[in-house]
Amino acid sequence: MVVLTSGLLWKISIFVLFCVLSRSQADESSKCHSNKSPCVVRHLGELVQENYGRPGLSHIFVAGANDDGMKEIEVWMATYAPGSGTPNHRHNCEEVFIVLMGGGTLFLAPASNASFPGRPQMFSIYPNSTFIVPVNSVHQVRNTMGLEDLQVVIVISRPPMKAYVYKDWTTTHDEAVYHFPYFEKKLPATSYPISETDSAIPITSRMDDLQELVIDVDQTYSDELR
Amino acid sequence: MVVLTSGLLWKISIFVLFCVLSRSQADESSKCHSNKSPCVVRHLGELVQENYGRPGLSHIFVAGANDDGMKEIEVWMATYAPGSGTPNHRHNCEEVFIVLMGGGTLFLAPASNASFPGRPQMFSIYPNSTFIVPVNSVHQVRNTMGLEDLQVVIVISRPPMKAYVYKDWTTTHDEAVYHFPYFEKKLPATSYPISETDSAIPITSRMDDLQELVIDVDQTYSDELR
Repeated sequence: MVVLTSGLLWKISIFVLFCVLSRSQADESSKCHSNKSPCVVRHLGELVQENYGRPGLSHIFVAGANDDGMKEIEVWMATYAPGSGTPNHRHNCEEVFIVLMGGGTLFLAPASNASFPGRPQMFSIYPNSTFIVPVNSVHQVRNTMGLEDLQVVIVISRPPMKAYVYKDWTTTHDEAVYHFPYFEKKLPATSYPISETDSAIPITSRMDDLQELVIDVDQTYSDELR
Repeated sequence: MVVLTSGLLWKISIFVLFCVLSRSQADESSKCHSNKSPCVVRHLGELVQENYGRPGLSHIFVAGANDDGMKEIEVWMATYAPGSGTPNHRHNCEEVFIVLMGGGTLFLAPASNASFPGRPQMFSIYPNSTFIVPVNSVHQVRNTMGLEDLQVVIVISRPPMKAYVYKDWTTTHDEAVYHFPYFEKKLPATSYPISETDSAIPITSRMDDLQELVIDVDQTYSDELR
């Protein structure tokens, strides 16, 4: 039998008070390691990943217009499996990429007065590289490495994104399909030439008025990524 | 002596043509591994790092208004040595952080009608965590780990940043100093309580009307970061 002396009662009171204070203080951080409610600090691994019907894609809204009330910027994290990538598309918002891991190729159609994007420039992207996509330039980012996932942080302005999607580099600007929201659950598969066997740069008669390059596309990948 | 037969001349011509074509094709990517001119794809390690007179800071404009012509977003990468961090400040643009490595504490003053920020809420930040700073909330991000650099990607809207800097959490909103540009070469050292010995949360008479917490600040750091 325990006798509750005044000294013991005093110690119990102190202990209970300490527990209550500790808990109220810890709540601020502990509740932010759960994914059950909006938290100030969140782990990227707790955020919803979607592929929006695009094989090889894992997309996270790190800070988004719809769920987080962002009005001026959106931050995404995207992972592209080997062979996958973004569609060929353009938009009139600013966009910045940071490559966290993996590599691939940025295809960027040079600005021109042509009625279609034409043969794009190709740039190697690699871990710790960054690039800005010029407003309204038709572009595509693809994991052309074939071995490792490509993981990038993407930042855009004026969310949510509205984009014109091109079937390929010879699709005319008039034929490009407007998508809003850009991240729909299902888009026509033909809009996304993302498998390794798809040709990112088909050569058709529309290309005849552009300067032909004598180097094979696949060879160029190899040269760039060497 | 080498006799230049028509066959040999033909082979030399083909070789020279190949070299010229290869070089023009390679230029697109090779010029983007140099830091001598604006490049499409750049390595983060090639970008200029500055500390703007703030000990422990290494700041990179990944995509900036001044050098890159960004109008709607800016992307920064910042590294804070142990004990260093941002000033206490607020701004009316949106801001998103992603923690790449290291850890620390986000101090965030709750919105109130008080004339000064008051005691901030504290949130642990850690690798692969992310947070949004509410517009116009007074905040500070500090490397409170003491062992490792804190490296973050920071995204803001409406660049370049204009910010009101607070000497401490009891500085009134009227006393906060407007800084534009925010990244000046030299700011008053007193504006930046970033050394380990500085108290991020001084207790003064102005705090008397706020609820006092019985837990010591340094103890709270330890509890949060355990």
